[in-house]
Amino acid sequence: MQKMFSVDKFNTVQTPFYYYDTQLLRKTLKTIQEESGKYPNFHVHYAVKANANPKVLRIISQHELGADCVSGGEIKAALEAGFPSDGIVYAGVGKSDWEIKLGIENDIQCFNVESTAELDVIASLAKEVGKVARVAFRINPNIGAHTHANITTGLAENKFGIAMQDMVPVIEHAKTLDSIKVVGLHFHIGSQILDMGDFKALCNRINELQAQLAQNNIYVDNINVGGGLGVSYDNPDRELIPDFKSYFKTYATHLRLRDGQQVHFELGRAVVAQCGSLITRLLYVKQGTYKQFAIVDAGMTDLIRPALYQALHKIQNISSNEPAETYDVVGPICESSDVFAKAIDLNKCHRGDLIAIRSAGAYGEIMASSYNCRPLPKGYISEDFK
Amino acid sequence: MQKMFSVDKFNTVQTPFYYYDTQLLRKTLKTIQEESGKYPNFHVHYAVKANANPKVLRIISQHELGADCVSGGEIKAALEAGFPSDGIVYAGVGKSDWEIKLGIENDIQCFNVESTAELDVIASLAKEVGKVARVAFRINPNIGAHTHANITTGLAENKFGIAMQDMVPVIEHAKTLDSIKVVGLHFHIGSQILDMGDFKALCNRINELQAQLAQNNIYVDNINVGGGLGVSYDNPDRELIPDFKSYFKTYATHLRLRDGQQVHFELGRAVVAQCGSLITRLLYVKQGTYKQFAIVDAGMTDLIRPALYQALHKIQNISSNEPAETYDVVGPICESSDVFAKAIDLNKCHRGDLIAIRSAGAYGEIMASSYNCRPLPKGYISEDFK
Repeated sequence: MQKMFSVDKFNTVQTPFYYYDTQLLRKTLKTIQEESGKYPNFHVHYAVKANANPKVLRIISQHELGADCVSGGEIKAALEAGFPSDGIVYAGVGKSDWEIKLGIENDIQCFNVESTAELDVIASLAKEVGKVARVAFRINPNIGAHTHANITTGLAENKFGIAMQDMVPVIEHAKTLDSIKVVGLHFHIGSQILDMGDFKALCNRINELQAQLAQNNIYVDNINVGGGLGVSYDNPDRELIPDFKSYFKTYATHLRLRDGQQVHFELGRAVVAQCGSLITRLLYVKQGTYKQFAIVDAGMTDLIRPALYQALHKIQNISSNEPAETYDVVGPICESSDVFAKAIDLNKCHRGDLIAIRSAGAYGEIMASSYNCRPLPKGYISEDFK
Repeated sequence: MQKMFSVDKFNTVQTPFYYYDTQLLRKTLKTIQEESGKYPNFHVHYAVKANANPKVLRIISQHELGADCVSGGEIKAALEAGFPSDGIVYAGVGKSDWEIKLGIENDIQCFNVESTAELDVIASLAKEVGKVARVAFRINPNIGAHTHANITTGLAENKFGIAMQDMVPVIEHAKTLDSIKVVGLHFHIGSQILDMGDFKALCNRINELQAQLAQNNIYVDNINVGGGLGVSYDNPDRELIPDFKSYFKTYATHLRLRDGQQVHFELGRAVVAQCGSLITRLLYVKQGTYKQFAIVDAGMTDLIRPALYQALHKIQNISSNEPAETYDVVGPICESSDVFAKAIDLNKCHRGDLIAIRSAGAYGEIMASSYNCRPLPKGYISEDFK
């Protein structure tokens, strides 16, 4: 911990802010390159939705990853950060016309298509400009990952993807469209998954579907298995770098590929969560009747995961070495949900202490809002404090 | 409905956007003036946190309301919109030094103080500049309003307010501070309250507390009862203007005031919710196996209440007069929580239709984020389409 944070340097900037440890980020990216590199047909895309801070994005783009985007804004951010356009895949149930046109103009690698209605719009917009759009179909594999309901996305009859039984007719329809080239299948079963058994279940389902496609003489070049690898929010220091070795090995072991098939991965949280912390200043220690509150200057406007997903982040008082006491850590926003943690132990708190809310590199800064007319938190990387 | 929305004019701007019906807003404000005006000692403040769109704020400031702010940013927004500084009250559990200084510099009407730790900081910052800060103490009345857990704020031992049993010692401590003038008590039991019995319960509790203060020879000038009046989300057209008459009458009937005591109200949602709608375009009708999805270009980034509070807003297809069908209305964000409504009836939907998500004037635009690298929604008022 002492190595990760420099309280003296943090005191020179306005709190709250996000701090990204770029040494850890680079080490994480190198591990991904090494572990995925064991399998020459594996290709990793960074899921931009986790964190699109330009400095963070630029570092990631320098590590041979593609980009997984979910909006026109993310495509622009990825291009600006230096990701090659032919490494961009674009998913999302609600692609607006301007977003599709942006993807077509830039000849992105692939549109992950989530409905026939969308396919027909992409076909017509590509035709208008005389191009052929590469598409993969996002198939809903009906696998319930063991994670929070809000981020489970692979169950039947949610808004995402195409039902398994519709897969063959949709692909056959797509093959009749001149401006469409079918290049793959896409899956995504959810986020913050720590049980490799969930990924194994996805492999088995993909194997079944590929067998079904083969019966219909359909072969695709790419299998995109989405992302979903989780991180340790409870104890980030015990596993600063997620277990990418087991993750890629699970797919290498269980996925039955056809000759030449390429496998694509979309990792977001696992890449950036642990390198980021929300640094906030303790404003007041408030004595309640039965508890004490550590009131900090960061709120749900800066980090909404606790309020939105009941997520728990490890919290540390990085200014104090005094024996721990028990606190509720709360923000300044006028909502009861603006609570970061209840009844946790922190080194004894004093007004002015700096508090680190850990594992906040993913779905932190990118989800911030200006609610309560608060300024957006800034993001700093290690190099900013050199 | 047809009167409220002009589809032709809406087609001239980019969706999604917020639309504020200023005729309804002005009518609502006039009703508040009339109903509160029946009681000369009643003073209404607008809770800026509900909506700080500059055009909306300016209209509200022209109707003799004060401003209830929860941050330095809101104080700035209120001043810019024309609210007089001596009509500004400032509440919040986590006031930063710069925010307190801003309030002191501008001689705001009152700080609603939530802890002794905060009181001492205000006292010392006021002393530094040779001023006296007026404070009211936010007392936690331990009343559980019948509303969503996240927006119930009056129960014991949450982060808000001062416990009832600490009230007298805190006030006596405050009286020893030269740079502090105690002017009142402040209460707030929650938001979106429709049961007048909750407000009556608060009156009774305030009466008890005032009796207790009298025993200690403590009298305050102001009783601030907070806000909390709800609106009809189910059927906005049946009650476009909330029942302010009953609301003010409840307090006039049940609150036992001392001679000369003034009563302050902080209304947010009740002022602005019904005049605002989120206007979004239907991108795709997606046929699922058992249901159909109306995929719109607005998402939880534009209106987070359904995802954060499981809030339901009435939704209308304002482009179609065809017989209704049943839809799940979902946004483009890659989260399962990005759903506006499940299994609701809408006039038959076609790609390109405009959809109005009603009662979105409060806690809509102000809570928007740029998650998924999406642009923030713009806000238009009726006059913008003239």
